[in-house]
Amino acid sequence: MPTIQGAVEAALEPLIGHAARVSSAGRTDAGVHAAMQVATFVTRTVRTPQAVRDGLNARLPAEIACLSAEPVHASFDPRRDPHTKTYRYTWLISDAPRPLRRGRAWRSRRQLDVQRMAESVLCLIGTHDFTSFRAAGCSATHPVRTIMDATVVVSGDEVHLRLLGTGFLRHMVRIVAGSVHEIGQGRQEASWLREVLEARDRGRAGRTAPAQGLLLERIVYDA
Amino acid sequence: MPTIQGAVEAALEPLIGHAARVSSAGRTDAGVHAAMQVATFVTRTVRTPQAVRDGLNARLPAEIACLSAEPVHASFDPRRDPHTKTYRYTWLISDAPRPLRRGRAWRSRRQLDVQRMAESVLCLIGTHDFTSFRAAGCSATHPVRTIMDATVVVSGDEVHLRLLGTGFLRHMVRIVAGSVHEIGQGRQEASWLREVLEARDRGRAGRTAPAQGLLLERIVYDA
Repeated sequence: MPTIQGAVEAALEPLIGHAARVSSAGRTDAGVHAAMQVATFVTRTVRTPQAVRDGLNARLPAEIACLSAEPVHASFDPRRDPHTKTYRYTWLISDAPRPLRRGRAWRSRRQLDVQRMAESVLCLIGTHDFTSFRAAGCSATHPVRTIMDATVVVSGDEVHLRLLGTGFLRHMVRIVAGSVHEIGQGRQEASWLREVLEARDRGRAGRTAPAQGLLLERIVYDA
Repeated sequence: MPTIQGAVEAALEPLIGHAARVSSAGRTDAGVHAAMQVATFVTRTVRTPQAVRDGLNARLPAEIACLSAEPVHASFDPRRDPHTKTYRYTWLISDAPRPLRRGRAWRSRRQLDVQRMAESVLCLIGTHDFTSFRAAGCSATHPVRTIMDATVVVSGDEVHLRLLGTGFLRHMVRIVAGSVHEIGQGRQEASWLREVLEARDRGRAGRTAPAQGLLLERIVYDA
């Protein structure tokens, strides 16, 4: 399967004159969009960062772009250096498909109880064992993660779940979204999410929400 | 070339059990998006409007959707009944391509002078001969149109030109956008747009802005 990393490495080689391995802050599942990503490579090129950015954009497929390029210290590791990520999960409340937002949201025909959803996710804030929201194939060595903020807000005909954290387990945001969806539909109380979290049992959570609703919105490194 | 009208007619026939001709408020150029459109057809079906909407959405390609369906008086003609349309033209100010907004905006590397652009478009409000902003192949019988509102605003990293009017000539919004772009770049004064309008000469206006920046945002019929 083609990967973004592979496409960037292929575009980079003719530009910098040698092969280079691109390391990023993490991969996203197929169907998940990313508004940004941070990646590094080691090069002997004399091109300026701006020329590398423009050269990459001339060579990359239209689905991938280099927003900016800058030199970093050789010790900088986008995966291991301390950073936070913001993920957004989007529901679209609509009786009909909306082609202009195709592949960008999970459509719900019924209005969701956003107040109840917003209340439910507060229990996720803090450092917790997120085993209940971890996909079977997750390769992380431990299931404890820190979530700094968790919100659910209405934006026009969309509902946005945002999670800000230092790291995420495999499918974690999508399993949280699938669970919060049940609360929004009125099939569970707001307090149910805390019960699921504390159970440390994937079987207690909701289903994994579809990939197309998920966006990696932001990655910020500690100054 | 496939048309939206053709796709809707093809989806409709098996649903209502007979062929029907679909009439809309107007066509948009290739590459232009529409957030909504109003279209009518005559049918003998016993299906409810909701069932027609859902049946259409099950059969239509993913790029087209029926947002709602309702019965109207037989005399209603979406093209001729009095209505207003709102078109939005979008510039994206960015040094790099932005894949999530691909095909939705005209990218400008340099910031545009939005204040000057906003000032320039005020001259379009009113009933004017828009010959200067009319494409060569335009089939309209006369070049006079009424514009009720014209604004240019910043929205995040985008600049939006909105024109509200009772009717538009071929490529009219795109030629206005191409002209306003020159003002935003500082290559013309704000007052230049009025000179172009008054000249009634297509040769005086800017180039036709690319189709992907244009969105038919709204159509409203007189109550």
